[in-house]
Amino acid sequence: MRCQSNEELEALVEEAKQLTKHGKVADYIPALALADEDKLSVALYYPDGRCYSAGDTSENFTLQSISKVLTLALALMDRGEEYVFDHVGQEPTGDPFNSIAKLETNKPSKPLNPMINAGALAITHMIQGDSVSDRLERLLLFIRKLSGNDSLTYNAKIAQSEYETGHLNRSLCYFMKQHGVIEEEVEDLMDLYTKQCAIEMNCLDLARVGCVLAMDGADPVSGEQIIPLDIARICKTFMVTCGMYNASGEFAIKVGIPAKSGVAGGVMGSLPKKCGIAICGPSLDDKGNSIAGVRLLEMMSKKYSLSMF
Amino acid sequence: MRCQSNEELEALVEEAKQLTKHGKVADYIPALALADEDKLSVALYYPDGRCYSAGDTSENFTLQSISKVLTLALALMDRGEEYVFDHVGQEPTGDPFNSIAKLETNKPSKPLNPMINAGALAITHMIQGDSVSDRLERLLLFIRKLSGNDSLTYNAKIAQSEYETGHLNRSLCYFMKQHGVIEEEVEDLMDLYTKQCAIEMNCLDLARVGCVLAMDGADPVSGEQIIPLDIARICKTFMVTCGMYNASGEFAIKVGIPAKSGVAGGVMGSLPKKCGIAICGPSLDDKGNSIAGVRLLEMMSKKYSLSMF
Amino acid sequence: MRCQSNEELEALVEEAKQLTKHGKVADYIPALALADEDKLSVALYYPDGRCYSAGDTSENFTLQSISKVLTLALALMDRGEEYVFDHVGQEPTGDPFNSIAKLETNKPSKPLNPMINAGALAITHMIQGDSVSDRLERLLLFIRKLSGNDSLTYNAKIAQSEYETGHLNRSLCYFMKQHGVIEEEVEDLMDLYTKQCAIEMNCLDLARVGCVLAMDGADPVSGEQIIPLDIARICKTFMVTCGMYNASGEFAIKVGIPAKSGVAGGVMGSLPKKCGIAICGPSLDDKGNSIAGVRLLEMMSKKYSLSMF
Amino acid sequence: MRCQSNEELEALVEEAKQLTKHGKVADYIPALALADEDKLSVALYYPDGRCYSAGDTSENFTLQSISKVLTLALALMDRGEEYVFDHVGQEPTGDPFNSIAKLETNKPSKPLNPMINAGALAITHMIQGDSVSDRLERLLLFIRKLSGNDSLTYNAKIAQSEYETGHLNRSLCYFMKQHGVIEEEVEDLMDLYTKQCAIEMNCLDLARVGCVLAMDGADPVSGEQIIPLDIARICKTFMVTCGMYNASGEFAIKVGIPAKSGVAGGVMGSLPKKCGIAICGPSLDDKGNSIAGVRLLEMMSKKYSLSMF
Repeated sequence: MRCQSNEELEALVEEAKQLTKHGKVADYIPALALADEDKLSVALYYPDGRCYSAGDTSENFTLQSISKVLTLALALMDRGEEYVFDHVGQEPTGDPFNSIAKLETNKPSKPLNPMINAGALAITHMIQGDSVSDRLERLLLFIRKLSGNDSLTYNAKIAQSEYETGHLNRSLCYFMKQHGVIEEEVEDLMDLYTKQCAIEMNCLDLARVGCVLAMDGADPVSGEQIIPLDIARICKTFMVTCGMYNASGEFAIKVGIPAKSGVAGGVMGSLPKKCGIAICGPSLDDKGNSIAGVRLLEMMSKKYSLSMF
Repeated sequence: MRCQSNEELEALVEEAKQLTKHGKVADYIPALALADEDKLSVALYYPDGRCYSAGDTSENFTLQSISKVLTLALALMDRGEEYVFDHVGQEPTGDPFNSIAKLETNKPSKPLNPMINAGALAITHMIQGDSVSDRLERLLLFIRKLSGNDSLTYNAKIAQSEYETGHLNRSLCYFMKQHGVIEEEVEDLMDLYTKQCAIEMNCLDLARVGCVLAMDGADPVSGEQIIPLDIARICKTFMVTCGMYNASGEFAIKVGIPAKSGVAGGVMGSLPKKCGIAICGPSLDDKGNSIAGVRLLEMMSKKYSLSMF
Repeated sequence: MRCQSNEELEALVEEAKQLTKHGKVADYIPALALADEDKLSVALYYPDGRCYSAGDTSENFTLQSISKVLTLALALMDRGEEYVFDHVGQEPTGDPFNSIAKLETNKPSKPLNPMINAGALAITHMIQGDSVSDRLERLLLFIRKLSGNDSLTYNAKIAQSEYETGHLNRSLCYFMKQHGVIEEEVEDLMDLYTKQCAIEMNCLDLARVGCVLAMDGADPVSGEQIIPLDIARICKTFMVTCGMYNASGEFAIKVGIPAKSGVAGGVMGSLPKKCGIAICGPSLDDKGNSIAGVRLLEMMSKKYSLSMF
Repeated sequence: MRCQSNEELEALVEEAKQLTKHGKVADYIPALALADEDKLSVALYYPDGRCYSAGDTSENFTLQSISKVLTLALALMDRGEEYVFDHVGQEPTGDPFNSIAKLETNKPSKPLNPMINAGALAITHMIQGDSVSDRLERLLLFIRKLSGNDSLTYNAKIAQSEYETGHLNRSLCYFMKQHGVIEEEVEDLMDLYTKQCAIEMNCLDLARVGCVLAMDGADPVSGEQIIPLDIARICKTFMVTCGMYNASGEFAIKVGIPAKSGVAGGVMGSLPKKCGIAICGPSLDDKGNSIAGVRLLEMMSKKYSLSMF
């Protein structure tokens, strides 16, 4: 499928783009530091198949934290709501996404929610399969189905880069292993997690994934229920309460669309019953969200009255 | 106006009511400890004037933390969005509603959001007027308009009880005074805040308030825009991200309705574009929310598919 | 009694004095901000009555936190060890002296030690007497006896200044009142505490107080046991583990003398079985200790091998 | 050398021993859980070669955290004071010995002191040598010299057990690696650290080590300065401010002897200029210190007036 270019959208992108120079690309993962920080693109995917875009939407980027929503959906399908939330909490937190302090102060030790790194690692731990490669394959199949892109895979170079430098995530893993939150070998989990974060797609693919969540889990083309309704709702709820790192509250107020961002500059939005949205803009603000992407969503929300509140 | 009793609703209330014995009434404020913990009532208020109820909805209860949403609306109208959020944050927190720790660790000191006590005190501080009684009068007029109940006022005995025992809130106030977040005399602010928390109404009144917020600030009868649209949205957003104390995330997942609870057992819900909901059930769970009220909302949300996600 | 001036000591003072320009006088209490930041003086008081000094030791300064050691001694005499340590802990803390966070995280709420503000306020609360003025009088009599200076009293202007601006201490008080650590009216306790902190003396007086503690509580002249041996030891122990704010560990390593500092620039040292030391140097380092005073003690400790370790 | 049995000491041991049933042996390291919890033994080693003991002092036990004092001495000798304290702080902390929270909140990330696990791991990282086995050999040689026991080594089974279960220490290591506090492979450091903790000796050996520290680093027999005076003092200072885990403050008050405990039930004391003391009593109190050992030291301190304060 091809998206129609849209003039109005192009104008908004041009305006929002001016912000890119006030942010900077993620540099804590060496391979991400190479991204072009001036870029900004957006795609909207509607359940009737219409699709609009602006900017260069053909370029791939890695999902990074956006993948946390998708592994959550799969883990909920694999394990059920009760099991998942016995091990990972449902509450937003005022702490940074990579913080370890709450794991220590909360008794029993339990990550506060699936969107912070500790919780996401615990969720990835729940993906079923006989081996890391088996579990990765299941996750890839699931995401290919959601995106309609049968050939997508992960970027091995970026996965490797994150694997080598991810000491903070290892620290979280070992802390959770000590407390029985995770049981497998930490290096196995790190292997799976870094590959998951490095899954690549373009804006069109991602907007389609957002659309499936928006439509309560149903494929917009075939109507197939890829994700059960309850689970799709859970995903959107976490996107509102903690999808945009430590700016989730502000984003909910200014934009009002369930959304999840990643440090490669991607943002996936899911407007309930309406459409999926995807943005890629690698220049990040100090909270780790695409600086121009957030502004673009704010402008779109105001102009088209998209807030769900 | 009178609400119609509704059989289906009565049945749900009867079922949810069985939970009351697993909670307990708030006892840290002596005057609240006298509430009848077996009670449970609910009212739904629709923009077309229809109203349904179950249980004894004629009884008054104090708003307590529910009032935080209404002072936020008035402060935003008095001071503007920029001023308000320069002084109080927009992010949910994993800490308890009465916690002081984050005031210390965050630099500069700034309450994380208007729904925790520190933030609510800072918001009440912003209500304009020449004196405490003047500011209280403005707040009462505002809430009378929202509820359509011209005679409502605060419960002086409960206000006094909270004033006398509110040492933790005084601690928060002095901490914020040290850091310039509030400037007035702490005892004046405590006077105003405890009276605000002690404002009384019944379920029908509260459901109407919820309905105004649901309708983006417009009076369901006269159509008058009592609260500007943007501000009504902000209120609903905070109700989702931090309206139900430390169970806001779980509530958003299980119920999916913007809601704010108080320790007297009240819950106000605002389903965007649909209706206002009010519940009173003084028996609280360990997070401080009406134990049967939360269950009732969960049952209603499932039965009528009310989740906004 | 008069102290002999001592050339060697004068030389050390001159050298240490060069550091004063790298610190600054306390400015959070307006009345303290007026101190002459270039000053540095020292006195040593030996049990045989010998006394050596350097710099201008006739000038008075307020004890500030140094008073915490003396109220602790009096509270232990008034209430006994068990009562005191049931309400205030004995452990050093890595948190700042005015921190409130640990009061919240520790269950039950209990100040960590008598040298941080929370603990010192709880200790002052224990001083017995029929009224604030009665309790203050008892404390003054006790300190006059220790110092041998019958006319010393508190500086009313500085006490008033601290009373008016002490919102953080009020915050600590109300927090502890909420948790039952203190029971009296907060304003009464603040009145007593700020007067205690404003008790004034000069270096000679303070060196004599330090000497009494060094001699296990016995008056160096009369031999009278002013403080029981056990209690004098407890005081010196806290001076080592938490007497120099958040630099107590480093000070113990570099100097190795039980010591307590105050933000007016005073330091009281008590070298067990040997002598009392007093220093006044209002220019403070970033931990709140006299910047030149700490250096002077370090030089003296090295030169005369004073470390008790 | 042989220690003389001492009747008075035997009587104290018998009395203190009654406490063993109120504690329990460490069970988080499987190999330690096998210790006989009823045991209690003590040895005193004087610089003139006299030695007194009570209980069965021939049995070996692992040093565990007691080793932290000895690696600190060696690291200070290897790297110098400035380097060591640039990377590890000198301040006591109110947090548990295995806490990670302060590593996160302190900026830049730096362990608070060498006696908590994070700091001890960073100190072990500083031990020089070409390989793990080389560094271990250097440490063993150093400790053999201090103890006068040329054949002592580590318990391979206990080292292995701690290596396999030490996920919390791995978590601390990776956190510090992320922040540049340590640079080597975490598994190498864990290998060295767990072997260091598993170094075994008996009470007589350990009392002699304590005596060397007491005598400012000089061998009591040969007079050789094994540890420079300054470094021996630093070790004793840390033993006072943070040697007995979170009960260091209370221990300093009740006992007043520089001491370091380990979870195998050992305690090493160093009374400046007087003697070394060693205790072994595997039953621990809730802070992780030998429950009967602490009582015994308290009784000895009272009876013989050993407090240095």
